[in-house]
Order: sequence, then C-alpha cells, then structure tokens
Amino acid sequence: MKPIHHKIVFQPSGRAGTVPAGISVLEAARRLGAGIEATCGGQGTCGKCVVYIESGTFSKYDVISNLDHVSPPHEAERRILEHRALPAYARLACMARVTGDLLVTVPPESQSQKQVVRKSANHRNIALDPAVRIVTLHLSVPNREDGSDRERVLAALAQQAGVTGGVFDYRALRALPDALRAGEGEITATLWNEKVVIHVQPGDESWPLGLAVDIGSTTLAAYLCDLRTGALLTTVSAMNPQVTYGDDIMSRISYAITQPGGRSRLHTLVVAAINELARQAVEGVGRAVEDVADLTLVGNSVMHHLLLDLDPGSLGQLPFLPVIRDAIDVRASDLGLQVNPGARAHVLPLEAGFVGADNVGVLLAEQPHRQDAVTLIIDVGTNGEIVLGNRQRLLCTSAATGPALEGAQITHGMRAAPGAIERVRIDPETLEARFKVIGQASWSDALPPEQLQARGICGSGIIEAVAELLTAGIISESGRFNKALATPRLIRVNGRPAYVIAEAAQTALESPIVITQSDVRAIQLAKAAIYVGARFLMQEFGVAAVDRIVLAGAFGSVIDKERAMIIGMIPDCDLDQVISVGNAAGDGARIALLNREKRREAVHLARWTQHVTPSAEGEFQEQFVAALALPHAYDPFPHLAAALRRSKAMPAASEEAEGAECVPH
Amino acid sequence: MKPIHHKIVFQPSGRAGTVPAGISVLEAARRLGAGIEATCGGQGTCGKCVVYIESGTFSKYDVISNLDHVSPPHEAERRILEHRALPAYARLACMARVTGDLLVTVPPESQSQKQVVRKSANHRNIALDPAVRIVTLHLSVPNREDGSDRERVLAALAQQAGVTGGVFDYRALRALPDALRAGEGEITATLWNEKVVIHVQPGDESWPLGLAVDIGSTTLAAYLCDLRTGALLTTVSAMNPQVTYGDDIMSRISYAITQPGGRSRLHTLVVAAINELARQAVEGVGRAVEDVADLTLVGNSVMHHLLLDLDPGSLGQLPFLPVIRDAIDVRASDLGLQVNPGARAHVLPLEAGFVGADNVGVLLAEQPHRQDAVTLIIDVGTNGEIVLGNRQRLLCTSAATGPALEGAQITHGMRAAPGAIERVRIDPETLEARFKVIGQASWSDALPPEQLQARGICGSGIIEAVAELLTAGIISESGRFNKALATPRLIRVNGRPAYVIAEAAQTALESPIVITQSDVRAIQLAKAAIYVGARFLMQEFGVAAVDRIVLAGAFGSVIDKERAMIIGMIPDCDLDQVISVGNAAGDGARIALLNREKRREAVHLARWTQHVTPSAEGEFQEQFVAALALPHAYDPFPHLAAALRRSKAMPAASEEAEGAECVPH
Repeated sequence: MKPIHHKIVFQPSGRAGTVPAGISVLEAARRLGAGIEATCGGQGTCGKCVVYIESGTFSKYDVISNLDHVSPPHEAERRILEHRALPAYARLACMARVTGDLLVTVPPESQSQKQVVRKSANHRNIALDPAVRIVTLHLSVPNREDGSDRERVLAALAQQAGVTGGVFDYRALRALPDALRAGEGEITATLWNEKVVIHVQPGDESWPLGLAVDIGSTTLAAYLCDLRTGALLTTVSAMNPQVTYGDDIMSRISYAITQPGGRSRLHTLVVAAINELARQAVEGVGRAVEDVADLTLVGNSVMHHLLLDLDPGSLGQLPFLPVIRDAIDVRASDLGLQVNPGARAHVLPLEAGFVGADNVGVLLAEQPHRQDAVTLIIDVGTNGEIVLGNRQRLLCTSAATGPALEGAQITHGMRAAPGAIERVRIDPETLEARFKVIGQASWSDALPPEQLQARGICGSGIIEAVAELLTAGIISESGRFNKALATPRLIRVNGRPAYVIAEAAQTALESPIVITQSDVRAIQLAKAAIYVGARFLMQEFGVAAVDRIVLAGAFGSVIDKERAMIIGMIPDCDLDQVISVGNAAGDGARIALLNREKRREAVHLARWTQHVTPSAEGEFQEQFVAALALPHAYDPFPHLAAALRRSKAMPAASEEAEGAECVPH
Repeated sequence: MKPIHHKIVFQPSGRAGTVPAGISVLEAARRLGAGIEATCGGQGTCGKCVVYIESGTFSKYDVISNLDHVSPPHEAERRILEHRALPAYARLACMARVTGDLLVTVPPESQSQKQVVRKSANHRNIALDPAVRIVTLHLSVPNREDGSDRERVLAALAQQAGVTGGVFDYRALRALPDALRAGEGEITATLWNEKVVIHVQPGDESWPLGLAVDIGSTTLAAYLCDLRTGALLTTVSAMNPQVTYGDDIMSRISYAITQPGGRSRLHTLVVAAINELARQAVEGVGRAVEDVADLTLVGNSVMHHLLLDLDPGSLGQLPFLPVIRDAIDVRASDLGLQVNPGARAHVLPLEAGFVGADNVGVLLAEQPHRQDAVTLIIDVGTNGEIVLGNRQRLLCTSAATGPALEGAQITHGMRAAPGAIERVRIDPETLEARFKVIGQASWSDALPPEQLQARGICGSGIIEAVAELLTAGIISESGRFNKALATPRLIRVNGRPAYVIAEAAQTALESPIVITQSDVRAIQLAKAAIYVGARFLMQEFGVAAVDRIVLAGAFGSVIDKERAMIIGMIPDCDLDQVISVGNAAGDGARIALLNREKRREAVHLARWTQHVTPSAEGEFQEQFVAALALPHAYDPFPHLAAALRRSKAMPAASEEAEGAECVPH
C-alpha cells in the first residue's frame, strides 16, 4: 500500500513539498530545507522550534489555524508552551506530527537562518504628491459662535492650510474631541485628496506612512513609505497563503466559486497576510499600523477580485469580464485591512480579464507609452503579463506561465529568500557546478561546504541552471538529459535523470539539491507560454524584432537576461537593450502611492492599452510546441550565436524517448 | 441595618423601582406591576415566566447581558430552559433572584397582558421624494466591449433610468455577480440620492423600506415606511435602555465621560435597542431587516452624540459646543445598525448645544416658519425643547424637565403602554376618581374592577391627575395636599399624604395606584421648567401672549391641553388655539425619510432658528419658584377662570409645612 502523503508549505521561506503522514513538522522542515532552530535536536526539551500551524479554519482577517492537521500536543509540549504568550495555534515543530495538509509559519525567533529582505525596491525618482498629507492646526479657545468642533477645525483648515470645502470622515469625527483635549487646541489632521479629514491626532508629532502592496499569485510584497519625504522605509515579502488552495489563478477561481465559503476564505487569507506584512513593516521602523494612512494595491485580475471579495467566476469564462476594471477607492477597514481606521485603499485599475492591476503598475514604472523604441515588457510570474509597444500604441496579453518560475512545482524550488540558490554556473569542460546563495556574498567555490547551507533554488537560479545545462550540453535543445555524459553530477532520482547543483554537504538538507528532468520540463512549459505570448504581440504590432526588452518579476531576484534568452523565454534582441528591473509592478504601486497624478495616468493607461488574445487555437498549439525547444525550434537567435555554439554540437543520438513526464508534478 | 436594595427596570412596560435584594424577578415584577405570566404561581414548573436579563456587559451591538446581577440558575431551571431555543441570558423570572441592578425584558410570550402599539404616528400629507428609490434594469448578454459588470449596470442605469454619473457602493459591487446570475440579467438596483447604487437584487420583486427613528432620553420610537408609496407600515416603541445609566441627559453625559468604556456602552445600548425595534417592525409586516434601505434619526443633542459614538463632554460645559451640528449621512453599518449593508443613516442637524435634532424634526412637522401666527411649540420630554416664533423669526431654548412627564421618577409611573392609566377624572363633590387604561375602550367606572388590571400611570395620566387634584381642591396652588378632607381616597404612604387613583382591586398590583406628595412635586418641577422657558422666549420675542400653542411629546399619549394649562405647564392661551400633536419629532424624522427636500429644509431651519439662553441666573431662579405654583404664583390665566374657580376657594390654612420633600426621589 502506498503510504499517505500530505502537502506542507513553510513560510516565509516558501519551501514546499509532500511528506509522509506521521513525521514531525521539524523532520518535514529538514527534508524540505525550511530551516527551523532545534538546539536539543528535536527531543522536545529546548522549546526553540515553535511554529504556527496556519491552514484550514479561519477567524475573519486574523488568526488562521487548523490544529486538526497535526497530532494533538502531549503533556510535555503543553508544559513548555503554557507560560509563553503564544497564540493557540503555536506548536513545537519537533512534537507536532503531520496528519493533513499544512501551511506552517516559522516565526523569526525559530528560524535557524534569520530572514533578511532580499532586495529593496528599485531606486526611482518619483515626484512627491501623495493622496494623503498632514496639516497641523492651531485652534483658539472655543466660543458659542463656532457652532461645533467640526466647524472650528474646518474653518482652521481653510484659514491655516487653504483647504476649502473640507469634509470629515465619520471615524475622524469620533476621534476629534479627544485630540482637541489632549493637544490643547493643537491638532494634526490627516487629509485625503485635499478634501476629506480621515484622521486627527493631538499635537504636531505625527506624520503619515503609506503602504504599497503587490499581490502576486505566489508572492506578496509590501513597500512601506514615508509620505512626507517619499522615502522607502522598508520592504517586506511573504508567500501568498492562498497557495494551499491552488497554485495558479485558474485553480483559485475554481476554489472560490465551487467550494462553500471558498471566495471568502481566499479573501480573508490574503488580507490576513497583508495585515501581517504591514505589522512587520511598521515594527521594523518603530511605528504602529495606525500610522499607515494610505495604501495602494496591485495584483492580477484574480488577486484583485479576491482582495476585494468579488466573485472571480466571470474572469474564468467568456467573455472574461471583470466585475469592475476601473480604479477603486475603498476604506481599508472595509477590506479588513488593519491600518488607520480612516485610511483608504486605492486599488489600481485592471486592463482586461487576465491583464491586471499589476501590469498597470509595470506600465507606470516603465513608461513604454512615453518612448519611441518598441519595447517588450515581460512581467514574469505565475500569471505572466506581456506588453508590447511605444507611444503610438500599447498591446497587452497574458500567459499562463504557472508558478515554476517562482520556484513552485520545482523539486527543490523555493522563493527568493535566504538559503535559496539564485545563481548557477556549470563549467562546460568539467561539468562541475558552482552557485551563489541568497544571504552570502561569495560563490560556492569560494566557501567551505559547511558554510553554504543551501536550502533550495529560486526562480532566477532555475532559469540560470537550465541555461547552463543547455550550454554545457547536459541537456539538449529539446530539454532532454544527455545520459551518455560521464560525470558524478548526473544522477538518477526515482529512476529519472537529474543534475546535482549542490552536493549534500553544501546544503542544509540531508540530500543534494538537484534539477530533475521534470524541473526542466516545467521551465520549458513556462518559458514557452511567455515566448508565444510575446511573439503573438510582435505579430499584432507588425514587428519582426523589438528594440528593447524589459524583464520584470515579483519573485525577488533579478533575472539574468542572457540566460533568459538562452532558454528562449524572450525573443532575440541586442543584449545591451535587455534590462531586468525586478518587481516593476510593486514599483508602480509605490509610484501611485506617492503621486496622485500617476493614479489618474494609471486609469488612462489601463483603458488605452489594447488587450489582444490569440484567435486561432490550432495556431497557438503549434507555436507553443515549437517554443518548448531551447531556445526555439526554428526562430533564429543571432545575438546568442556564440553562447549556443557548444549545445548545438551535442549529439542527438544520446537522447532517450520520454513519455508523460513532460508535465511537471 | 438597612436592607440592600437594587434598581430594576422592566421592558417594554417601563415599570421601574427599587426592590430588596434577594426577591425573585417575578416578585419584583408583581410589586412594580410589570405583568409577567406565571401559570404555576411562581413554583418554577410552568416555564411561562421567561425573561431576558439585559444589563451590564455587552457584546457589540447585539446581546446585552449580565447574569451576574441575578442568582445563578439551579438544576431544575436549567432543565426547563435547556431544550428551548433561548438566548443564554434567558431566565425564569420566578427562579432568578435579584442580586444587582437590572434591566429586564419581558418578551411578548411571557407578558400577562400582551403589548400593543399605543398610537400610530399622525396622519400627515408628505410629498413623496425619498432619498432611496429602486430601478429595475434589464441587461443584455455580456460581451467583451462591455468592459466590466459594473460598467454594464451603469450604462443600463443611464439608458433605462436616465441616471448618469452613477457610482457603486463597494458592498453593492460585491453582491452584483450573484444578482446578475440569479436574475438572469434582470436586477433591481437601489439608488441613494440618484447617484449611488447601494444595493442590487435579482429580478424585480423587491422594494425598499425606510425607518424613521426618534431617540428620546427615555423612550425610543421607530416608524417603518414603504418608500415606494410613503405608507406608514407600523410604529414600534421601547424604553431607551440607557435609562439604567442615568435618567436625564446630564447624568448620561456624566456616565459617558467619567466611566471607562461608558460612552461606548451607551452607544452600543441604544444601537442594540434600535436594531431590536427594526427587527420587530419588519417582522410585523413580514419583511426582513435587509429590506430597510434608508434611515433617518432624530434625538436631543446628547442622544445624537451617543448614537454617533461622539464624546458628549463638550455639550455639558461652556460654551456647550457639539462635536458636529450639521446633518450627517453615515453608513448604517458604521453605527452598528443591522439593516441593509449599503443603507445610509441620515442624522438630522442639531440647532444648538441642548436643542437637538428632535426639535428640528418638530419644526419640519409643524412648520411654524411658514405661518404668521406667533406659535409656541413645546416638545415635552426628559429634555424639554421649546420654540417660539413665526415666519419672521424663530427662537429656541431647552428646559431641564427631567423624566417625570414620561412616567419615570413617579411612584407608579410607567411609559404609555398597555395597563397604563392615561386619563384621570376626579369628582369635585365626591372626591372619587375614575380613569382610563391604555388598551381598554371604557373608563374604569364602566368596568368591573377585575377587568381593569391597571399597572401604573403614564405621563398624560399624571398631568391629568395633578390638574384634577387641583380643581377638586385636594391639592392647593402650592401643590400641597389638603389633609383636612375626609375621603378614603386620601391615604398616607410612608407617613406622607397620597391620593388613591386606582384601588387595589382595580390594579394588577397588590396595592392601590397612588399619586404621592413627591409625585406632585416632581410634576411641579417639570412643568415649571417648561413654563419658565416658554415665558423667557416670549419675553425675547417681545410678546405678552402667543397666538397658538403646539404640545408635542414622544411619550405616546396625547396631552390634555386644558389640564396642561391648569397645572401651568403652558402659558395662558385661547384653548381653541392649543393643539396636542403627539410625537412631532418622530413625524419630522418620517417627513425627512420620505422627502429629500425636507432634509435640506432641516439644515436651513437648524441654522436659522436662534438659540437663546436665560442670561441672569438670579432672575431664572425667581421665575422658576413662581412657576412652581399651580398654575403660577402671579401670571394670569384668564382662559382658565371657570376651571380654576373651585381650587382658588380652597382654604390655605389646611396646608402643612413641608421640608426637603420638594425634590423627587
């Protein structure tokens, strides 16, 4: 009988996989490289391996817990935990045994390798004109002619700040008497859109923060900004906890519309995760969540609908109409977001059914509509979004990339967090590999194995690995392993060929980190979807080649442009004209946070950009199959001539026939 | 040692008093005449005397319970209650013993005399132009050019209903996909102010209801209207549960600002009570609370602030500034009101610190500003509000009446509910009394005693009783009992004189219903406050007499205008020009509910009406003392010459000196 397995996902590392039922959460973390501290070696005595069990039942917007999917705590564990101020869903990883699918958070104090933020957002010059600003007002002693406290403040707002026609948010009104009393007539009013008083505080000590949030299918990123100066204070990221309910947007739609309470659950999960990011971000800079007075949010259309708790059903069927596509300002509290009670959340507009607000963010950040050069912008994510054009015309489309390029559905995949292999080089002569791990300054060949502690491989690492396997001749153009090569790096995993990127001694696991045949197939499927989408837009636009390519992605690490071209994820282009910009969608959200005019530009861009979809299904299939090859079955890549010379020389005879393994597990 | 006593208030009758600790709630109800069914005679076997314990701790906006103030249930009681679907705060009145102050609701099924609504609101002709209307829309099959579901609906709104520039409330947006699906393209949109879609439903079967609410310090009244036709569907009323935290507005302010959580508690209590009234009202007409799509609310300034959860502190100190005095539209859900999630609550404006939105309602209903006649309007309540003027000028002031005229702080006082004595006549020859009880068609002298079952006396009954005592010569102009009279109706209660209105056999109590010397004093204080306020406005306006007097009051029963004048609650006037209009404040709320233009008129009226306060404290005191006399120490009442002839003849020598009893208990 086949043993029962359960799916387990660790946050914040993103390490995920299936493990046999009955093993401890600590053991699962070891096998998957999630890095939990356990000084006593898992004896249940040191109490260091506290984790939070996070999946299943829900309390609106906050605690998410299902202790049913782990074994109940024994007396010894209870004794260790009872005197600490821990939530009810805290467990010792060494004691809790896996009895069902789990989402587990490893809190910072339990992480064996502390979480650091991989990348700050790009430095961009953004003209500062936020939707929220503060005004300090001095109010004289009240007299009967003043009418009311509200009128006193609105009169002061007109006289001292030149704001006429001001109105009070009801919640700010409730806070007004206390602020007047505590401030002895001096208060700071927080003003939204030069009109609505959304918050009042005593004195003049406070200033507002803003949070820009990019909601990816797999990864969430949040940027905390000082709205007075525009400074980016901190960047935080986490997995989207919705991943336990489906890896891609179609499965999220399916869960939301077929499961009772499904939509509400997905909404609640993502809001709770954003709340947690907001808490982390403000704590990191010594502020409180109440100081967050404005938010902007982007995400693909399904993430957008689930954030707003809107039925995503119509996004999944013809004619793919969203419930709303225009920008929307909602009170943050209406969404369950725990920031300032008066804060508004500005959700950027959608372009079309599957080209979302995240792509509008990319356009805001990259400004292709202000350039003459024909630019191809590829936002790599679980839902790939592609734009082509210039100041004359912008076309967009989407590509069902799947999560492989974000490290999911890859044997040792993880998101771009400490411990992730982000860069890979394979020597074409020796077939030996070296790599670089996030959190370490040097490459693996400059460090002793025990210092490496690699835990997995992230999106950028996977792209590089596949490109290097190709140029080293270890895999063919069709992606198949060349099993004739004599190197200890080439091993078999479950009977299928795999290449060892990191040897067991170099990892935090008890096994090597490998790229399997399935992993190569997953990357081929993902990159082919992007390539076909890009070629389709080029055909629509009427160009055989593009002037520039911009590679964007929320998955944390910058993509190596040459290797992205080597695997055929992007069409041929002068490599000097290919740039990799990191999370442009998040940058766009930050731009909209800091500049109100950009919110209007976003609305214009979303309507102006023309959404096109491949019309003939048969043609798409044919192009897709041709695009599975590395880099492509017949499209020329003159700019890669040198790099590809060696792989072209590889004998085709050494390939084996393969069956159904083409679809990743 | 003095035995411990606790305060207990029964809803919906309003019967209240202090009872010794340790007696059962049923016994307390008997002593106070609250009328609880108990077939088994209080043996704990019939299970009919279920009551809800309602005071103390709070769960936001809903259940209000404190089982600590009664003895815990024994096993026998538990067995009786356990199989019924009752809230946790349900108890058997015969088993629960009083151990603290209590607010007890006697649900309809436990009332020995069933609750009926005393009065419908006045019939008034109101032009129908509500803020909310419904539009049925037919949507064609979606296509890609429609952009989004929201745009489809807004386009249909423009084409089919002529509403351009429409916007969607976020909550209505969430309901849109389901409505489109269920209605197969036919939906009914609920539109607020011709602009905001606040609700969508499938098909064309629904129509909106509106609720107008008058929040009195002592009594709440709610009017459920059909917003399609303007019809008044039902009227419901209840005690304001805040009464357990203070009888008048000053004590409510004090509780709100000095007790931790006090303001929030008072807010929560009144919202929960309004929610309960809304439920009762819609259930009575077979509808659901979600059908209530619009609300208007009035109340005095303190009730207004507590409804909005605004700090009422500044209302209690110079310069008596409210936090807000203008009309305010708040989402009903922001206040905790459980009606349609998209519904707005329109709270009418205040005139000044102590002249509230309820008085604006009175002005809307009575329209003194459209008349040449100089009209005096007195809104009798725990906080009396007085207006004088005509189309030239309107003056207003407030009077600290106290709750006596609503039946509180009166020995057998209760609100105008079934069982209340509402009319009283005393034969000046025999000194015998007859009375009329709410819920019975005939006077007491036409009914056998066992059918009467009087439980107490309401405001209108008390005014009549005091007037009749005066004209019968039983009390003097100064309010003192004439103890020389030989009649069994004149008895002693705790050593002080009292007059028997209803003999024990005519009551549901085990004792007679009496008017004591303290009760007469309480009425004198209340009516003097009103009279002085009215005279002050007349002086400010520059008239010695008024052309018309309008008597309004939320306490349920119409005031007998002649007897109100006999006790000197109102100044002398041609009795044909005195009218009693019932709850004009509630009528005003209803007018604003049904007509948007009247909401604008209310804002104008609130600003136009001039608030005046007595300037010289010494003069006020002197006038107040003179006004304590019945009808007045020196002001002439030529229109009452005949009625007062007999009382004037009463010998002053029979009066006793009295001390501190002048202040009601």
